[in-house]
Amino acid sequence: MCTPGMAGPVLMTLPPPRDAATRKADALSMLATPAIDVWVATGSHSTPHLVPVSLAWVEERAVIAVEASSPTARNLAASGVARLAVGPTRDVVMIDADLERTVDVSTDAALGERYVAQADWDPRDSAGYLFLVLRPVRVQAWREANEIRGRTLMRDGSWLV
Amino acid sequence: MCTPGMAGPVLMTLPPPRDAATRKADALSMLATPAIDVWVATGSHSTPHLVPVSLAWVEERAVIAVEASSPTARNLAASGVARLAVGPTRDVVMIDADLERTVDVSTDAALGERYVAQADWDPRDSAGYLFLVLRPVRVQAWREANEIRGRTLMRDGSWLV
Repeated sequence: MCTPGMAGPVLMTLPPPRDAATRKADALSMLATPAIDVWVATGSHSTPHLVPVSLAWVEERAVIAVEASSPTARNLAASGVARLAVGPTRDVVMIDADLERTVDVSTDAALGERYVAQADWDPRDSAGYLFLVLRPVRVQAWREANEIRGRTLMRDGSWLV
Repeated sequence: MCTPGMAGPVLMTLPPPRDAATRKADALSMLATPAIDVWVATGSHSTPHLVPVSLAWVEERAVIAVEASSPTARNLAASGVARLAVGPTRDVVMIDADLERTVDVSTDAALGERYVAQADWDPRDSAGYLFLVLRPVRVQAWREANEIRGRTLMRDGSWLV
């Protein structure tokens, strides 16, 4: 675990850590926020890629829309895994996810509607764009140093709380 | 290039794009912000890692402090490269960086002082922590869709502006 960009308790008084149920509720609320973005980290032969893109949270899946030619789409096609971050650095929801399926943006009307309902742009007419449907495997949430303990809310695809 | 978490111009009116000099000044100002965090993406065999950590910007280097045993430190030791993001998703500074050097936090007093002067915690007495000094190779900055063009401010380690 890396130092999570935290204000140490030496320097300031932190609010008490949230319990697991509160963290889960906060995380789900954040993931469903209209027009929210997600940092998407992917890798190719140990070279990392990272970009912010719009997020839709649809039936416990993180859905993003990217160009088929983008590093994110190509890395995910090759590796099948991504690490996602939602929220500011001191109120994060971190998701390790597997690529569940890839859909041309014009072909799955139901998914497109769900995406557009949350995101603040509409990719459905954008040639060459794909929806990538990412299945969370591990979910963690923390704010400051005192929330590192107890940060794991989902493991192996199952909620712990 | 992925869809950068943007509000499309169809949906709202964006402010005009900043020129390169303004973007560089804004980026340098952001990087020097006290108590700011950086998203650090690293990779190992195509498995991405991503964490937020505190940032110090010291003589055009991004300096972070992490545990030697952390995935970030191990990935960087193996691959030598990271991709960094500073700022919120719609006002980002993206940095592709090489690992220039690794220093035990207790051994380089000058670096430690510079780190502590910007970060809001002090790792110098933390056993097992390292300063990783990351040299920018490419720097990009954008806010919304209309700033994707012209986003590259540094290439091959040299400022373009």
